Amino acid sequence: MTKSFQFQHEMLHQVPIPVKLLTSYASFGLTELELVVILQIHRFAYEKNFFPTPNELISCLSIEETTCSKVLRQLIQRQFLSIEQRENDLQQLTEVYSLEPLWKKLFLAEPQPKKR
Amino acid sequence: MTKSFQFQHEMLHQVPIPVKLLTSYASFGLTELELVVILQIHRFAYEKNFFPTPNELISCLSIEETTCSKVLRQLIQRQFLSIEQRENDLQQLTEVYSLEPLWKKLFLAEPQPKKR
Amino acid sequence: MTKSFQFQHEMLHQVPIPVKLLTSYASFGLTELELVVILQIHRFAYEKNFFPTPNELISCLSIEETTCSKVLRQLIQRQFLSIEQRENDLQQLTEVYSLEPLWKKLFLAEPQPKKR
Amino acid sequence: MTKSFQFQHEMLHQVPIPVKLLTSYASFGLTELELVVILQIHRFAYEKNFFPTPNELISCLSIEETTCSKVLRQLIQRQFLSIEQRENDLQQLTEVYSLEPLWKKLFLAEPQPKKR
Repeated sequence: MTKSFQFQHEMLHQVPIPVKLLTSYASFGLTELELVVILQIHRFAYEKNFFPTPNELISCLSIEETTCSKVLRQLIQRQFLSIEQRENDLQQLTEVYSLEPLWKKLFLAEPQPKKR
Repeated sequence: MTKSFQFQHEMLHQVPIPVKLLTSYASFGLTELELVVILQIHRFAYEKNFFPTPNELISCLSIEETTCSKVLRQLIQRQFLSIEQRENDLQQLTEVYSLEPLWKKLFLAEPQPKKR
Repeated sequence: MTKSFQFQHEMLHQVPIPVKLLTSYASFGLTELELVVILQIHRFAYEKNFFPTPNELISCLSIEETTCSKVLRQLIQRQFLSIEQRENDLQQLTEVYSLEPLWKKLFLAEPQPKKR
Repeated sequence: MTKSFQFQHEMLHQVPIPVKLLTSYASFGLTELELVVILQIHRFAYEKNFFPTPNELISCLSIEETTCSKVLRQLIQRQFLSIEQRENDLQQLTEVYSLEPLWKKLFLAEPQPKKR
């Protein structure tokens, strides 16, 4: 075990993922790439970055910025992701991503047959 | 909120994912598809299925069985995944997937430059 | 690091807890002991034991069985915990604990002033 | 379901707890109160507050500040908790709690008989 390993650090850097997201994304017509972009947005939110740029996102993806922007646009159009206005601590309006549309589909909708 | 939604159920069906997996898989040369196959194996293990078949895996993936088998083979060859022998409750030897090689790379190895 | 430590094992043995449970139990009039009994029931459910006996529960608590039974009774009376009937795989009716009443108080109720 | 409930919010406010902490604290001679103080310190760290004051801690506990300070002192003396120096973003030394001593006992030590 290397010196740098710290349980404390690794324990604090985990993000719980709903099993249903992993078992249902394909039935929603989402690809693996789209799922991973969703997971990255969720992970950035966990780290209190609620509006990562495409450039920040691709630093942890294997795709180019233009592909990333396209994926984001399509996730919004297909209503898995939304952009909301929120007031920050300085009473300024800022934009944040919200995965609420996805969670609602996931937790409240009737199960759909898998599209392949 | 539909009748069928239960906090109890959703609370119990989550799987914690290390942030480092989401931020480092690309630097390990893994694709989004390979990452999602890893997440599915991890998720099956959470549900006490330690050796899902390619057929079980693709029920939650957008790929075909032959592609899935190929991904599994490559994950093993590149030492992210291993197959171990374990004794079950009936003292029979069974095979299980282990992601221990991946976790060791992730938590103990020195950071690598991102390969794209 | 001892030989027996396995990331794989520890990764798969975690249970996500809502922050709100940790920040709100005291305002619900719950004691630390009652909170821990709730966490143990939640943890057993995670491990697919949905109706742990008082004896199983105290194996991981610092209290005696009679105290444990009393705590369980009070959690039910005060509507944090319920006992539900569920059909098992053999079509037999079995009893299970449900923390749904607690989750509903936690996630759907208006915030209450802290009772001390 | 009240208007204010948001999956997005609740999904992002969860903290994974190792099962072993819930099953082993009593065998370490820790009480339920001490366990909950540990969980609160862990939860504050999750929210990036690495050195909560006793006053902050008791806002989510059913105990008084003097009791809380005593519990913290004992956790440090018995080597479950430590105070470390860390450099913040402004290159100033600040103090932070670390649960690393606890995690090491938990994950690396040999199992002990339960003390009651």
